[in-house]
Amino acid sequence: MSRIEPRTFRGTRDFLPSELIPRRQILSVIEEAYRRYGFQPLETPAIEYLDILTGKSEENDKLIYEIKRARGGEEDSAESAIALHYDLTVPLARVVAQYAELPRPFKRYQIQPVWRADRPQPRQGRYREFVQCDADILGTNSLLADAEILALTYEVLRALGFDKFKIRLSSRKFLFGLSNLITGDDSHFFDFCRCLDKLDKIGWEKVEEEFRVAGIPGDRAREIVTDIFSVAGEKPDFSQAKSKVTGHQKAEEGIAEIEEVFVSARNLGVAEGFLSFDPTLARGLDYYTGPIFETVLPDLPHLGSLTGGGRYDGLVATFSKENVPATGTTIGLDRIQAALTQLGRFEPQPSLTQVLIARFDSEGMAHNLVLASQLRNAGLRVEIWYDDDRMKKQFAYADHQKIKYVLIAGPDERKEGLISLKDMLSGEQRKLPESTLIAEMKSRLSPSGD
Amino acid sequence: MSRIEPRTFRGTRDFLPSELIPRRQILSVIEEAYRRYGFQPLETPAIEYLDILTGKSEENDKLIYEIKRARGGEEDSAESAIALHYDLTVPLARVVAQYAELPRPFKRYQIQPVWRADRPQPRQGRYREFVQCDADILGTNSLLADAEILALTYEVLRALGFDKFKIRLSSRKFLFGLSNLITGDDSHFFDFCRCLDKLDKIGWEKVEEEFRVAGIPGDRAREIVTDIFSVAGEKPDFSQAKSKVTGHQKAEEGIAEIEEVFVSARNLGVAEGFLSFDPTLARGLDYYTGPIFETVLPDLPHLGSLTGGGRYDGLVATFSKENVPATGTTIGLDRIQAALTQLGRFEPQPSLTQVLIARFDSEGMAHNLVLASQLRNAGLRVEIWYDDDRMKKQFAYADHQKIKYVLIAGPDERKEGLISLKDMLSGEQRKLPESTLIAEMKSRLSPSGD
Repeated sequence: MSRIEPRTFRGTRDFLPSELIPRRQILSVIEEAYRRYGFQPLETPAIEYLDILTGKSEENDKLIYEIKRARGGEEDSAESAIALHYDLTVPLARVVAQYAELPRPFKRYQIQPVWRADRPQPRQGRYREFVQCDADILGTNSLLADAEILALTYEVLRALGFDKFKIRLSSRKFLFGLSNLITGDDSHFFDFCRCLDKLDKIGWEKVEEEFRVAGIPGDRAREIVTDIFSVAGEKPDFSQAKSKVTGHQKAEEGIAEIEEVFVSARNLGVAEGFLSFDPTLARGLDYYTGPIFETVLPDLPHLGSLTGGGRYDGLVATFSKENVPATGTTIGLDRIQAALTQLGRFEPQPSLTQVLIARFDSEGMAHNLVLASQLRNAGLRVEIWYDDDRMKKQFAYADHQKIKYVLIAGPDERKEGLISLKDMLSGEQRKLPESTLIAEMKSRLSPSGD
Repeated sequence: MSRIEPRTFRGTRDFLPSELIPRRQILSVIEEAYRRYGFQPLETPAIEYLDILTGKSEENDKLIYEIKRARGGEEDSAESAIALHYDLTVPLARVVAQYAELPRPFKRYQIQPVWRADRPQPRQGRYREFVQCDADILGTNSLLADAEILALTYEVLRALGFDKFKIRLSSRKFLFGLSNLITGDDSHFFDFCRCLDKLDKIGWEKVEEEFRVAGIPGDRAREIVTDIFSVAGEKPDFSQAKSKVTGHQKAEEGIAEIEEVFVSARNLGVAEGFLSFDPTLARGLDYYTGPIFETVLPDLPHLGSLTGGGRYDGLVATFSKENVPATGTTIGLDRIQAALTQLGRFEPQPSLTQVLIARFDSEGMAHNLVLASQLRNAGLRVEIWYDDDRMKKQFAYADHQKIKYVLIAGPDERKEGLISLKDMLSGEQRKLPESTLIAEMKSRLSPSGD
């Protein structure tokens, strides 16, 4: 067999232990927060029928990886086309339509990779295969659900150690009213959102021009949005904001909706300064129908949004006669990791092993195996050294892997029932009776600790 | 938009919370055992270049799902073909060849879905998308590594509550010597293994015939294998076994290899009766070079093997000039789950939530939100009820979801600083001062417990 060059597909990554160990710690923090908020886990297949996935967003349709039906083995290869899911929201909508036994409300979280045939941009945390952490609440129109999503987002980011971030909040209903107020009719709504969504990236001058191209009076749009912006922010004056749209019912309702979500999120624990009513937020996806939100890091604007979501009351109906209201968010693991890395708070860790049992001589190996078994039964994470190598090499391995303790039992120690314990950090080495070893190691290392 | 019928691709599954919660508990048990044995986590992309995957096993090549390069978005669609990985061993071999910084020995575990265009057989735990849990040790020829893999397998199955299983152990080196002893040359080795591998399914009569078709004296093969089988098993007499192959060096070496692994695995904690030297074990894959092993449940023979592995010293060399010896096992999560289900030991659990805060009246909702925030900060898993529903409906939800406690604060309670706590199991309901609530709930529910 000729040798194949080892390499990974562009936009995908291997996670070696030193990166994966802290990455998994991030995931644990996210998952524990999801559970504290009463979300239950769900998993759906990576492969879906293509028609399940398409038609929800023109932009995403272009990014779908289709799968060829296999060359052999499958007896049903004449069936419909199949593809990899590009998000976890569309599969969720399918699931809720498919299983009558699911409760209402249905609060689920889902942490899985998704695939998009996109241009990879590692510095922005953008890949072709990446992990989404979704939390959604289905089956209620209550805006308390939207507020819980915001509080959850806040909780996750605080638990991950972020102390400076902004959760931006707006509402599609408000934007609908606003576009009517500005243009005099409802027909410009999607164009209005599409143009406004670019504000962060291209600034007001160019957005005004985009508005004009779309037949929306750009200067008037800028004036009104900026006017509301002046009474919005982290300490919004909602009555002032409402007074600026008086007589435009949808816009007023939208602001009332934002106010209710804002106040409830604060009651649920979101501290002042982290949440802001932002009338310039629009969000890209067409299926949003109510409150919309995303999180940005003011210090790392190039990363874009770390989390994003909103209410999407119509999506389940694409699969079901039942209309199931829904709201939720995605937290992007890869953007979170990129952010922590760029903030210098992502610490590689090569190993979780706590103890290495060194190989001093072949005769001692049976003894080492029994020792390993005892320590593992006590809950410790233990490696044994397999080969007849010098101690220097074994210590170098423990050092490289940041393993805290090395145990050595040479013939003399074995005869006396002793064992040498070397602390790799301090370099200290001392002998102790084997009978006290497990108690000693357990006191030095909590089994569930690091 | 016309309504799309919600459905899953054949051979793939949705995991709803009630199934996924106990399934994830199985995964935790496996992962914790892997860590106690000193394995570190690795993840590789689901998508690999096709030429990385092919050519390791003719049978598997037919089962590969190829991916179409996307319709838009990708600037490099002229590149090589891509596909979904069908196992985690081939990607591991690629990784070890690709990254010079990995330590030796490199002990990694990897728990990820894999895809095979196979015929789904749910009762056998066979799907097109399924999860493998792999543990491998690379960079050592020491048979202690193989013994550790066996001890790990034993540990995982015991920790999962299996009290009756058999780890079958043999060796490709032994089988190579045996085929030479039987046929007088080395050329029949792969045919010898291929035929012997079918013994479990088709019995000796048919295997003898398959041997004859392959040019191997079937009766002689049966006689010799059966003869060695008589001194093998759970308490093997290795010197007797060796005496039966005297003068056939490879076969003797093979038995010595099996003996060393057997004895070391016992020292590592494998209890008597769970491990057996089984000269009828052959394993399907061509790349094995040393000890081979698999686990079966005598009470559920139709499930086939729950775990399987062996030494494969040549695989990394398909990607690298360096020859890296390797041994490891796969534990099949889906077969484990199927086994536990069929043994009546897989208990659905709809929710992890511990407390539901009921909605008594709209005026109390701000109070409920603050309460939820406090309980969650104390580490409890808490839901609030969103909508203006009757208490009966809220209790029915808690009951359906098996949530242990419901908290209710009506206007009278709020005025008096009290809260009603209903124990859903006993039905008991009592009022307590809100100031003592958190301490009370923490004493009833350990935050990390269930």
